[in-house]
Amino acid sequence: MPTLRVALGERSYPIHIGAGLLGDARLYAPHVMGKRVAVVTNAVVAPLHLERVQHALEEAGARVLPVLVEDGEQAKGWAGLDRVVDALLAARLGRDALVAALGGGVVGDLAGFAAAVYQRGIPFIQLPTTLLAQVDSSVGGKTAINHARGKNMVGAFHQPLAVIADVASLDTLPERELRAGIAEVIKHGFILDLAFVGWLEENIGKLLARDRAALEYAVQRSCELKAQVVAADEREEGQRAILNFGHTFGHAIEAGAGYGEWLHGEAVGTGMVMAAELSARAGTLSREEAERVKRLIARAGLPMQGPNIAVERYLELMQVDKKAAAGKVRFILLDGLGRATLRGDLDEKLVRESIAAAAQ
Amino acid sequence: MPTLRVALGERSYPIHIGAGLLGDARLYAPHVMGKRVAVVTNAVVAPLHLERVQHALEEAGARVLPVLVEDGEQAKGWAGLDRVVDALLAARLGRDALVAALGGGVVGDLAGFAAAVYQRGIPFIQLPTTLLAQVDSSVGGKTAINHARGKNMVGAFHQPLAVIADVASLDTLPERELRAGIAEVIKHGFILDLAFVGWLEENIGKLLARDRAALEYAVQRSCELKAQVVAADEREEGQRAILNFGHTFGHAIEAGAGYGEWLHGEAVGTGMVMAAELSARAGTLSREEAERVKRLIARAGLPMQGPNIAVERYLELMQVDKKAAAGKVRFILLDGLGRATLRGDLDEKLVRESIAAAAQ
Repeated sequence: MPTLRVALGERSYPIHIGAGLLGDARLYAPHVMGKRVAVVTNAVVAPLHLERVQHALEEAGARVLPVLVEDGEQAKGWAGLDRVVDALLAARLGRDALVAALGGGVVGDLAGFAAAVYQRGIPFIQLPTTLLAQVDSSVGGKTAINHARGKNMVGAFHQPLAVIADVASLDTLPERELRAGIAEVIKHGFILDLAFVGWLEENIGKLLARDRAALEYAVQRSCELKAQVVAADEREEGQRAILNFGHTFGHAIEAGAGYGEWLHGEAVGTGMVMAAELSARAGTLSREEAERVKRLIARAGLPMQGPNIAVERYLELMQVDKKAAAGKVRFILLDGLGRATLRGDLDEKLVRESIAAAAQ
Repeated sequence: MPTLRVALGERSYPIHIGAGLLGDARLYAPHVMGKRVAVVTNAVVAPLHLERVQHALEEAGARVLPVLVEDGEQAKGWAGLDRVVDALLAARLGRDALVAALGGGVVGDLAGFAAAVYQRGIPFIQLPTTLLAQVDSSVGGKTAINHARGKNMVGAFHQPLAVIADVASLDTLPERELRAGIAEVIKHGFILDLAFVGWLEENIGKLLARDRAALEYAVQRSCELKAQVVAADEREEGQRAILNFGHTFGHAIEAGAGYGEWLHGEAVGTGMVMAAELSARAGTLSREEAERVKRLIARAGLPMQGPNIAVERYLELMQVDKKAAAGKVRFILLDGLGRATLRGDLDEKLVRESIAAAAQ
């Protein structure tokens, strides 16, 4: 079982990766012994994993309160947040309690944010059960809910005490969610590690076939790459922004199509097509490299075309992007394959062309 | 003009205290130059101070967005929080923007929490215009909104960049709010500084008559005392809890009477009567000292009796107190006058008697 570490001083924490870990009481014990633990999950994940997790937590000395939220992106709003807070208050959980986020990115973001603000902040652990959550959203402490005016617009940086990524939970993951998770895996290669891009080109078939060793390596390498970036820039004051490669376009796709229509990873897939196109047009990526990016996204079975919305609407939706500075939208470009750069000086014409190149 | 400093490493910040400071562009300039600033205030405070503040901020190089929230405690809820977030998003304020909280404790708590979670956190400054906010709530970084199940149950520790306390703004403060602010001033004496209790006993008349020099000293000494406690224990993992003297009972009074019926400081006043009674019954305060506490509270014109609610209801409401640990309510007792201690081992009988002694 590989265990990585996110190095953040006194907020450092381990990421455990392996098959069957959700049922391993020893991994929970250091964090939950003698505590009340609110396990936040949903009606899709609960039948698959809740009983085993609850049993292991109890074996580790915790008293468990299951809290069910809605399935899907719509859970990540004021109502979903109040649902979690209300359940914790109704059960009189104090500041000495703990939250466990059991599920995908939505559950992790929502439960993590609830922990960040409940009684001004209580600790939490991440138990990601989707590939996207295991390789990306559970690591790094970003938590948030959506607002009608934009995705993840209300949130906090709140680092978990631990991440326990059980790759066996990927066995039951719907095909579409598996591919959405692969989008974030290959993103880490594109922005940080050319060798990993090569590995992915060779092993994409194994990942789609859910070969467990391949999945475990993909999760491990993604977490290593992300943990390095997060350790260097926890609060996204600089370098961390590169993790948003494909996300400026992706967020516009998600909002434009209506939250919940596209999976986050799907939108990031198409967003990376647009961002690679923009990199090529801005001259930071060769045409051949851009095609290599697109080819891997296509082989992962991700959508290569955005939803049927106007280019103007994209531009409008991107205006509220959190990376914007002084009202100007900033983009992550690939600066060669395996390197990324944040640019705020791009000609809007290039942006429009890049959207149009991958629009319906 | 006295300037204090809250010593919190890289999160350290100044507290400026004096008459006329709200209109002083030089105090704003280091924080707002070239930035967009959302001034969160309400319909009571805006006519008194907004124009002057806006002018000074603009002189200091800021672009100002006024955001009006409801007056009173009811603003501190999900709806009020969404109102602020929505206004900032609608105006497309980015992460490089700043929030200024112009008003009393409610505005400071709400605007500060909005800043803490807007796009995962942007900076803010406190411009407290009530005595309570100047001596207490604007200092220390506690921000929060209320939940139907309890006061300040959702929030964050988010330190301001600066506090600018203009004692001239107290000229227009309603009498009832002045007395409510004095409750927190004398609280600082009771828990931390016997000499300051003596000064207050001599000068309570001047404070009620709004003698400016007396008010300035009271604000300064309160901020000094609170800043020391906050610097030693920013996140209330220990010693900071003593600042909650009178607040466990006080929160129950506020909730039991219905939010907005009692001012926070009024509830703290009566809460301190109960807490002094509890200290005497628990043997940590002499009967004479307890009477001295009560006498000063009475001289400040604060209510000496709680609202007409049953003792059982008090106990129920206190169960959700954030200081509770392992389900047991903890109380701050006076350990002699000028010293405080956190106790979780009190006989419920003593608690009941102390409530009854100050109940209707």
